[in-house]
Amino acid sequence: MKPERYKRDSAISYALGTETVIELLKRRPDCARTVYIHPDFRAGEGKKLIETLCADNSVYMEYGEKPFNILTQKENCFAIGSFEKYAAPLDPSRDHIVLVNPSNAGNLGTIIRTASGFGLPDIAVISPGADFFDPKTIRASIGAAFSVRSEYFASFDEYIAKYGERTAYPFMLKAKNRLSDVIFQHPASLIFGNEAAGLPDSFLSYPDTVVIPHSNAIDSLNLPIAAGIAMYALTTAK
Amino acid sequence: MKPERYKRDSAISYALGTETVIELLKRRPDCARTVYIHPDFRAGEGKKLIETLCADNSVYMEYGEKPFNILTQKENCFAIGSFEKYAAPLDPSRDHIVLVNPSNAGNLGTIIRTASGFGLPDIAVISPGADFFDPKTIRASIGAAFSVRSEYFASFDEYIAKYGERTAYPFMLKAKNRLSDVIFQHPASLIFGNEAAGLPDSFLSYPDTVVIPHSNAIDSLNLPIAAGIAMYALTTAK
Repeated sequence: MKPERYKRDSAISYALGTETVIELLKRRPDCARTVYIHPDFRAGEGKKLIETLCADNSVYMEYGEKPFNILTQKENCFAIGSFEKYAAPLDPSRDHIVLVNPSNAGNLGTIIRTASGFGLPDIAVISPGADFFDPKTIRASIGAAFSVRSEYFASFDEYIAKYGERTAYPFMLKAKNRLSDVIFQHPASLIFGNEAAGLPDSFLSYPDTVVIPHSNAIDSLNLPIAAGIAMYALTTAK
Repeated sequence: MKPERYKRDSAISYALGTETVIELLKRRPDCARTVYIHPDFRAGEGKKLIETLCADNSVYMEYGEKPFNILTQKENCFAIGSFEKYAAPLDPSRDHIVLVNPSNAGNLGTIIRTASGFGLPDIAVISPGADFFDPKTIRASIGAAFSVRSEYFASFDEYIAKYGERTAYPFMLKAKNRLSDVIFQHPASLIFGNEAAGLPDSFLSYPDTVVIPHSNAIDSLNLPIAAGIAMYALTTAK
C-alpha cells in the first residue's frame, strides 16, 4: 500500500525514525503494516534490529526514498513504520493522567514518554485535543506511545462516568493544596488543562486541587514540565 | 538599523512575539534597541503595553512587515524587539543550574523558563552548547531569559575554577543517590548533560551524583523534564 500524508481520520498512521520504528515492532507488532527503509540508511545496530524484528513478526519491508518525501521533512529519518490504529482502553485500577484539551502534539508525545517512564501508562485525552496517533505525537514520545494505553472522551463528564471511582487531582494555579503537601490516594487521576488556558474554573469545586508553586517571574510552568513534576511526586514515596 | 538574520556572533539579537518583547522591555530596557510592529498587530492590551513601555524607556518603534519576513517564519508573531547582547555573570552565593553541552535552543529556553519559575536564575552553559541569545532560546523561554543570569564556560573545569565553592550534583543514570533521598546542601550546582549523550562518566567521581529513577520502558527522561523535576526537588522543603 502506498503511504499517504497523515490525516486525523486515517486508519493508518506512521512511526518516524529508527527508535520509534523499533518501539512499534517491539510493542505493537500486531498493528505494524510496512516498514520503509531509506536508501541512505547505513548498516548498523539500528538497521539490523529493524530487519530482525520485521522478519520475526512477518512485517513487510520496502526500500526507497518516496515515502520519506511524502511523510517527512528534511529531518534525519531513515526508517518509517506504517501501522493500523488500535483501541487501548485505560486500566480502571491504575492511576491516570488526564489531559483536558492539550493542543500540541509534541507536548502530548513528551507527556506520554514521561508517563511511560514513571510507570503511568494510562492517559485520557478530553476532546478537543491533540491526536494521540499523529506521527508528531508518536515521534515526540520516541515510540513510548506504543507502550501506553490511551482513550479519548468527548467531555470530562464522560471520562468520570466511565472511570470515576478514584480521586481527582486537578492541577491549577488557584488550587488549594501545594503539591509537596499532597498525600496521594490511589487510584488517582492527575488532571491538566490546555497549554495556554489551563483548566476551567469549574474544576475548583474538586476538593483536591493542586498547585506547583512558582515565582511570579513566569505566568505558568510549561505543560510537560508541570505534568512531569506531578508524576514524579505521585510515584515517589515520601 | 536594519534587522539582519541572527548569527551567533552578532552583537544584536531579537525577542520574537508579544510576551517576549514585553519581558525585554520590563527586564532589560537598557539593552533594547528597536521594537518592530507588524501592520496586522491588532489594538489590544499587549500592543498598548508595548507602546507604553517603549515610550517610558525611549525605545524606538518601527512599523512594517519587512523585519518579520527576515526574522520569523510563518508563525504568529506581531512584535519583535532587537537588543544588544549583555554579560550577566552568575551570583556565586546562589544555587546554579549547569548545562554541559546542551544542543537544542528550544530545550535551553524551556529550562531557563523553569529555572526562573523556581527562583533559580543562575544558569551556566559549558561549551559547545546552544546559544543563550539565539532568538529560538529567548522565545522558548517566553522572555524569562531576560530575568536570569547566564554565563558560558569553555569547560566544566573553568566553571569550577570560578564558582567551585559549592556542592556539585551531577544528574546521571549511573548515579549513586536517588533524587528523593538527597538532602541538598547550598549553594548547590545541579549539573545536566547533553540531550543524547548525558554527562560523561568522569562525573561519576563526584560524591553526590543523582538519578531520577524511571522504568526501563524509556531510555531516559527528556532533558527539560529531568531538569524541571530536579529544580522542584531542590526548592521544595522536605
